[in-house]
Amino acid sequence: MKYHVKDLKLAAEGKLRIEWAARNMPVLDLIKKRFAKEKPLQGIRLAACLHVTTETANLVEVLKAGGAQVTLCASNPLSTQDNVAASLVKHSKVPVFSIKGENTKVYYSHINAALDARPHITMDDGADLVGTLHGKRIKQAPELLGGTEETTTGVIRLRSLADQGRLLFPVIAVNDADTKHFFDNRYGTGQSTIDGIIRATNMLLAGSVVVVCGYGQCGRGVSMRAKGMGAHVIVTEVDPLKALEATMDGYQVMPIVQAAPVGDAFITVTGDTSVIDAPAFSRMKDGAIVCNSGHFDVEINLKALARMSKKVRRVRTFVDEYTLKSGRKINVLGEGRLINLAAAEGHPSMVMDMSFANQALAAEYMVKNANKLKRAVYPVPRNIDREILGVKIDSLTPEQKKYLASWEIGT
Amino acid sequence: MKYHVKDLKLAAEGKLRIEWAARNMPVLDLIKKRFAKEKPLQGIRLAACLHVTTETANLVEVLKAGGAQVTLCASNPLSTQDNVAASLVKHSKVPVFSIKGENTKVYYSHINAALDARPHITMDDGADLVGTLHGKRIKQAPELLGGTEETTTGVIRLRSLADQGRLLFPVIAVNDADTKHFFDNRYGTGQSTIDGIIRATNMLLAGSVVVVCGYGQCGRGVSMRAKGMGAHVIVTEVDPLKALEATMDGYQVMPIVQAAPVGDAFITVTGDTSVIDAPAFSRMKDGAIVCNSGHFDVEINLKALARMSKKVRRVRTFVDEYTLKSGRKINVLGEGRLINLAAAEGHPSMVMDMSFANQALAAEYMVKNANKLKRAVYPVPRNIDREILGVKIDSLTPEQKKYLASWEIGT
Amino acid sequence: MKYHVKDLKLAAEGKLRIEWAARNMPVLDLIKKRFAKEKPLQGIRLAACLHVTTETANLVEVLKAGGAQVTLCASNPLSTQDNVAASLVKHSKVPVFSIKGENTKVYYSHINAALDARPHITMDDGADLVGTLHGKRIKQAPELLGGTEETTTGVIRLRSLADQGRLLFPVIAVNDADTKHFFDNRYGTGQSTIDGIIRATNMLLAGSVVVVCGYGQCGRGVSMRAKGMGAHVIVTEVDPLKALEATMDGYQVMPIVQAAPVGDAFITVTGDTSVIDAPAFSRMKDGAIVCNSGHFDVEINLKALARMSKKVRRVRTFVDEYTLKSGRKINVLGEGRLINLAAAEGHPSMVMDMSFANQALAAEYMVKNANKLKRAVYPVPRNIDREILGVKIDSLTPEQKKYLASWEIGT
Amino acid sequence: MKYHVKDLKLAAEGKLRIEWAARNMPVLDLIKKRFAKEKPLQGIRLAACLHVTTETANLVEVLKAGGAQVTLCASNPLSTQDNVAASLVKHSKVPVFSIKGENTKVYYSHINAALDARPHITMDDGADLVGTLHGKRIKQAPELLGGTEETTTGVIRLRSLADQGRLLFPVIAVNDADTKHFFDNRYGTGQSTIDGIIRATNMLLAGSVVVVCGYGQCGRGVSMRAKGMGAHVIVTEVDPLKALEATMDGYQVMPIVQAAPVGDAFITVTGDTSVIDAPAFSRMKDGAIVCNSGHFDVEINLKALARMSKKVRRVRTFVDEYTLKSGRKINVLGEGRLINLAAAEGHPSMVMDMSFANQALAAEYMVKNANKLKRAVYPVPRNIDREILGVKIDSLTPEQKKYLASWEIGT
Repeated sequence: MKYHVKDLKLAAEGKLRIEWAARNMPVLDLIKKRFAKEKPLQGIRLAACLHVTTETANLVEVLKAGGAQVTLCASNPLSTQDNVAASLVKHSKVPVFSIKGENTKVYYSHINAALDARPHITMDDGADLVGTLHGKRIKQAPELLGGTEETTTGVIRLRSLADQGRLLFPVIAVNDADTKHFFDNRYGTGQSTIDGIIRATNMLLAGSVVVVCGYGQCGRGVSMRAKGMGAHVIVTEVDPLKALEATMDGYQVMPIVQAAPVGDAFITVTGDTSVIDAPAFSRMKDGAIVCNSGHFDVEINLKALARMSKKVRRVRTFVDEYTLKSGRKINVLGEGRLINLAAAEGHPSMVMDMSFANQALAAEYMVKNANKLKRAVYPVPRNIDREILGVKIDSLTPEQKKYLASWEIGT
Repeated sequence: MKYHVKDLKLAAEGKLRIEWAARNMPVLDLIKKRFAKEKPLQGIRLAACLHVTTETANLVEVLKAGGAQVTLCASNPLSTQDNVAASLVKHSKVPVFSIKGENTKVYYSHINAALDARPHITMDDGADLVGTLHGKRIKQAPELLGGTEETTTGVIRLRSLADQGRLLFPVIAVNDADTKHFFDNRYGTGQSTIDGIIRATNMLLAGSVVVVCGYGQCGRGVSMRAKGMGAHVIVTEVDPLKALEATMDGYQVMPIVQAAPVGDAFITVTGDTSVIDAPAFSRMKDGAIVCNSGHFDVEINLKALARMSKKVRRVRTFVDEYTLKSGRKINVLGEGRLINLAAAEGHPSMVMDMSFANQALAAEYMVKNANKLKRAVYPVPRNIDREILGVKIDSLTPEQKKYLASWEIGT
Repeated sequence: MKYHVKDLKLAAEGKLRIEWAARNMPVLDLIKKRFAKEKPLQGIRLAACLHVTTETANLVEVLKAGGAQVTLCASNPLSTQDNVAASLVKHSKVPVFSIKGENTKVYYSHINAALDARPHITMDDGADLVGTLHGKRIKQAPELLGGTEETTTGVIRLRSLADQGRLLFPVIAVNDADTKHFFDNRYGTGQSTIDGIIRATNMLLAGSVVVVCGYGQCGRGVSMRAKGMGAHVIVTEVDPLKALEATMDGYQVMPIVQAAPVGDAFITVTGDTSVIDAPAFSRMKDGAIVCNSGHFDVEINLKALARMSKKVRRVRTFVDEYTLKSGRKINVLGEGRLINLAAAEGHPSMVMDMSFANQALAAEYMVKNANKLKRAVYPVPRNIDREILGVKIDSLTPEQKKYLASWEIGT
Repeated sequence: MKYHVKDLKLAAEGKLRIEWAARNMPVLDLIKKRFAKEKPLQGIRLAACLHVTTETANLVEVLKAGGAQVTLCASNPLSTQDNVAASLVKHSKVPVFSIKGENTKVYYSHINAALDARPHITMDDGADLVGTLHGKRIKQAPELLGGTEETTTGVIRLRSLADQGRLLFPVIAVNDADTKHFFDNRYGTGQSTIDGIIRATNMLLAGSVVVVCGYGQCGRGVSMRAKGMGAHVIVTEVDPLKALEATMDGYQVMPIVQAAPVGDAFITVTGDTSVIDAPAFSRMKDGAIVCNSGHFDVEINLKALARMSKKVRRVRTFVDEYTLKSGRKINVLGEGRLINLAAAEGHPSMVMDMSFANQALAAEYMVKNANKLKRAVYPVPRNIDREILGVKIDSLTPEQKKYLASWEIGT
C-alpha cells in the first residue's frame, strides 16, 4: 500500500484522538451500523480530499464499513493532524497522502495520488479534486459516477463550471444541506475561529474591537461568538440585506477602510478574494491582528502586504509580524489560511457529525442514483437532511395538520 | 363617503401620531415621491385589510399618491388605533371601516364593506379579504387583477387554496420577501411582543422562565429579546431542524407538557392551532401567564381553558384570570389575540417601513403584470426586495466579481 | 381625614392593580404576616415620600399591619398612579397627598402635608422629606427617631448633610442594601427604562445606537437591556474604573460630545446634573431622542436646550419636540423626568418586593434601635439583607466551612 | 547562580513569547520606566511564588528595573511555561525554580529554594510562600518586611491566619483591588477557562449544558462566556444573594445534585473544597466533563471519584477518563487543577497587566510603608488602583462636583 504521512509512530496517539471524537459523533455511528449491514458502497473506489482530522477519520471508517475503498488526501496544506493520518494508515489500512505544512507542490502531488486510485466517487472540500479532474486529468472524468462537495467555496467553483457547461458529472452540494451549513458554518466556524485566534495570540477579546468581513452563515457565527466573548464587533459586507441584518443584530456596519483604523483584530469569512487589501492595511493600528477563516488563503492580500513591508518575522507559532515601511506592525495569523484549522482543531466533532453524516448519505445516494442525474450541482435530498436530526420535541396533532392545510378558517 | 370609525374627534391626535411614524419610514417616503410623479396606480380601486395603525396610514398615503382609490378595513378586531382611523377619514378622505374591540359580526361587516368598493387589487393581512372573496362573494372574483398578502398565516391559507386549484387570481406573498419576514417577523415581532407582555403585566422578565412555542422567524425574535431581557428561555417546536437550531442558540428545547410546569410566561408564535391546550394548562404553575403573538387567536385553546375553569374575571386591562377547578390561576393576555397589537403598538414604524414598501411595490407590480401572471401565489420579485435597502457598505471590485465567477483558482 | 388625590372614583380600578402587584411580592407578604402578629411599629407615625404606585401601596399595607400610622406623599410630580392613590384613601384609609402631573408648588405643599402629620419616622425616595425638615421645618427635627432613604441620589444628599455635621437624626441607606441596589437599580431600572422609551416612542431598538450616560448599577442595567434588544450601545462615564468595565463588557466608551452625533437615543442615569448639555445638543442628529432615568430632572439641561430652540411642541404623549435654530429637531421624553415612571409603570413588582422588604425591615430596625444610633447615614444591617432572600441552593458542609476557615492546607 | 528549570535550550522561544506578551502590557511598561529611574526596590530581596508565565516574566523585569533581587518559583505544579522559565534564567539572570509537571515534593523544594534567598518581601499567588514561612520556616519570619497576595484563595488563608492572631507581617491583598479582581477574575478567568476546556476537549459549547459552581467574580465571568459561546448555563451557589443575581442574569440555579444528571460539562470556581463530590458523580451522564478553575485542586473530590471507579486512563492530553463501576465514564480535565493554566495559557496579558501593575505598586508601597503597617491583611491603597487606569472619558465640571456635594437642591 502506498501512502505519504509524516510518521507512523504517531499512530497510537492518533487512535486515541479518533476515539475521543467518535464519542461526539452519534449520527455517524448510526449510519456506520446500517452501512455495515447493507454495504451500499460495495466495490466503489472513493477519493476523498478533506481536512485530515479525527472527524474525517470517523467518516472514512463509515465509508469503509459501507464497502468503499477509500483514498484520502488533504484539502489544505496546514490542516492535517499528522497522528490521525498515521493511525488511518497503520490501524485502518487506508492510503493517506497528507502532511501538515506540505508545500503547494507536495499538496498537488497528493491530490494526484488520490486521483491515481481511479475513483468512481469524489468527496471534495473546496473542489480541488474536481478542479484537477477538469484540468490536467480531464481524460479520467468519464470514470466518475459523481462527487460530493463540502464547502461554500467549492460549490461556487462547481456552479461556475456548470454554468459554463463544462461540468462532466453530477455533484451533490453537501454544503447546502440545512444540517450542514447552519450548524457547521454558523456554530462550528463560530467557535473554532475564536478558538484559533486565542490559541495563536492569547489576546483578550473582552473590550477589543473585532472586525468581521462577511455576514454569511460563517460571519454570523464568528460575530456572535466574538460578541459573546465581550468584543465590540464591526461587520463589513457587500450585500445590503446582510448588512442590514448585521445592523439589526446590534453590530456596527461600515466599509473596511473605515473599520481599518479602529479594529484590534480582523477576520475574513467571505469566500472572496482580496477582501483585506492595501487600502485597509495602510490604515490599520500598530499591532493589528489579521486572519482568515474562509476556505482559501486569498481573502487577505498577503502579497500586497509583503510589498508594503520592510520586514517579516515569525514572532509566535502561527503569527507573522509584518513591519510596514511606516514602522507600524501588522500580525498575520496562520499565513492567512483558515485559522480554525491552522491554529486550532477545526470544527468540534459534534458539528462535523452532521456534516459528515450528510457526506456519507450523499455518497450512498450518488451511487444509487448516478445514472438518473445530469451533469449538474444538486442539493442534498431533503429526506437525507431530516434523517440526520433527532431531538425530543412536539409533533403535529391531526387537528393541527388539518388546520395548516386549510384556508377556510379566518378571524 | 361611507365609513365606520369610533369617533372623528380623535382625528387631530391621530394625525400627530401618523406624522411621528412617518419620521421612521424613509423608504416609504422615497416611494411616495416617485408614485406622486408616475401615478402607477391611477384608476385602480384597492381594498386593504390591514391593522389600522399609524404605519398603515402612511402606506395608504403612498397608495393614494400613486393614484389608487383606497378602502381600508381592519384585519383584526383588537388592533385598530381609533384616532388613526379617524384621521384617515377626516384628513385623508379615506373610507375606513374599523373600530377597536369590534365583535366578529361587525368585523366581517367591515370586510364586506371594503369588498363593496369592488376592488381591482386586494391587500391582505391574514387573507380574510381573499378568503371572503372565495367564499360568499365568489362572483366578484373575476373583477380582481390580483392581491398581496402580508403574513405567514395568510400565505399558508392562500397556498392551500392554490393547491386545491381554487385560487381565482394571482397573489404576491409579501411575507416571503427577505426585507419583510427577516425584519418584520424577527425584529418587529421580537420587540413588540416583549413590549406587549410588559405593558399588559409589568412582570419582571429577568430571572423569569419564558416558554416560546415555535422557532420560526417570529419565535427566534421573541426568544432573542426575552433572553436579552434576562429571561431563561425554553423553546417548543415540531420541526427537528428548528429545534436543533434553538438548542444551538443556547435555549432549552422540550415538549410543551414538560415546559408547562416550569414556565412563568408562555408565548405562541407558530401559525398553528391549539398549540397550548388542556394537557399543558393542567400542568401550569399558579399565576402562569399565557399569550399569543401569532396571527390568529387559535394558538391558545381558550375554549378548553374555559371548560377547565370555574371562574373568569378581568384583573387588569388585557389580563383575564382563569381560575381552574383546582384553584390554580392562569392569566390570559389580550384574549389570546396577538399581544403586540392588543396591548402595545405593533411593530415599530421602522420595521413596517420595509414591509409596507414591499406592499406598495408589489401592488404596482401586480397592476403592471397581472395579465402575465397565473392563478398562483408569487414571491416578491427580487429587484423589489433589493430596491428597498440602503446601507453604506463595501462593493465588489471587478477582480472580486471575476474571482467569484471562476472555478480555476484552487489551493 | 385630610387627603389630596385626583379622583376617588378611580379607587376600584386601583384596588385591582394593587392586588395584581401583590402576587409578585412574596417577601413583603411574609413580613406583613409577621408584622400583623408582632406589631413592631405600634404607635409610630410614619411619613412616606415615595412614588405612589401599586408596589408602594403594598408597602403601606405592611407598615399599617405593623401598627404604624402612615401618611403618604409623592416623591416625584409625574410618578403617581392616580387610581392607586384613590384606593389607598378609600379602601385603606391612608391620607395620601399626590396627583400625577402636580406642579412644583403643589408638590411641596404635599411634602409639607406629610410633615404636618408630625412623623417619628421618615421614609424618603430622594430625600425631599429630610431635605425640607432640615430647611424650613428644622424645628420639627427633634421629634424624629430616624429615617430611611431609598435612592442613590438621596443618599448622596444625606451624606453631604452628614459630612457638614448638619444631619439631625440617623438615616438608613436602604439603597445600599445588596438586595436593593443590585436588583432594583440593575434589573428594575434596566427593564423599566427600556419599557418607558418604547412606550413613549415606539422606536425600534434593534439596529439603533443607544448612548447610556453613566455605568453605575442603573447604567449597567440599561446598557444590558438595550444590547439585549439589539441596540448598539455607547457608554459615557467620568470614573475610569467604570469606563474600563463598560469597555470589557463589550460597549464602546467615549466622551458625550463624541457620542452626540452618532446616537439615536440618549439615556442619563448618573445622579449628576447637566450631563447632557449644550455642546452635546449642538452635535446631535436630527430626530435624536433624549431622556433621563436618574432620580432628578437635572441630568438633561433642558433650559440650555430651550435657549437653543426656536420652537417646542408636544408631538406625542411624553414627547416634546425641540426645533433648534439650525432646524434640527431633538425629542425630549417625559420632560426629562425619570422615563420609567413617567411613560411606563416603574419597576416591576418583583423588584420592588425586595426594595420594600428592606424599607419595612429598616423602619422596624430604626424604631428598635434609634436610641443607639448617631446622627449618621447607616447601611442596612446585613441580617436584614439576607432575611429577604430565598432560593433553593446548596449549603456549606461542615468540611467546607472548616476549609474556608483554615490556612494550613496549601498546594 | 542556582536554578531549576526544564531546559535552557528553550530560552530563545521563551524570549519571543515574553516579548509578545509585553505588547499587551502597557501599564506595566509605564511603571517599569518610572522604576528604572527611581529604583524604589533597591537592595530588596523579593521571593515571588507565581505562575511562571510570559506575563510574570514581564513583572519580574519591572521589579528588577526597580532594583529588586528576584527569586521565582511556581505557584502551581502544572502552570509553568518551561521556555519562559528558561529565558528568565538565561537572558534575565533570574534564579527560577519551576518545571511544568513537577510533583508535590519538587514543588515544595522549589518553594523552599525561593525562601532560601532570604527575602524581605514575598509575592504570593495562593499563599504558599507565606504558608510555608508560618509553618516550618517560622524562624525566618522576622526578616520579612511584608508580602503581597494575588488570589482570593490566598487572601482567605491569610485572613484566617490574621484572625487567629498568628500572621507575622503585613500583607497587601492585591486580589481585592478593583483593577485586579474585576478584570482578572471576571474577564481573565472567563475567557481562559473556556479556552482551556476547548483546548482540552474540542467540545462544542453551543447547545451544551454547562454547570458553573460558584457565582463570584470568576463564576460570573465563566458563566457569561459559556453563554456567549451558546451554552445553556446552570449555576450552583451557597450564597442566596449570588444565587438570586445568577437567576436575574438569566441562568438556571439549582443544587449540584440536581444539576448533575443534566450537565455536559462542570466547572468549579468557588475557592472551596469538595464542591463536586460522590453524590454528584453518581448522578452524572456518561461522558460528562469535569474541571476546575479555582485556585487549588480541592474543588473536585478526585479521591472520591477514584474510589467509585474501576479504571482510569488518559485518553487525550489533559483528559483522564474515569470508568465508574456502573460503566459510565467521567472525564476529568487537567487533574482537577486550574484548567486555564493547565490546558491553556492562563489569563491574557492585557488582564495580567493590571493585576501585575498592582503587584509592582504594592511591593513599592510595602517597602516604603512597612514600618507603619501592622501584622494584618491590607487592601491595595486606592490611589494605586486608580493610577492604573487610563481611558478617554468625560470629567466632572465644577458645577457637577458642586451638585454632587450639595444636599439643598431637591425636586
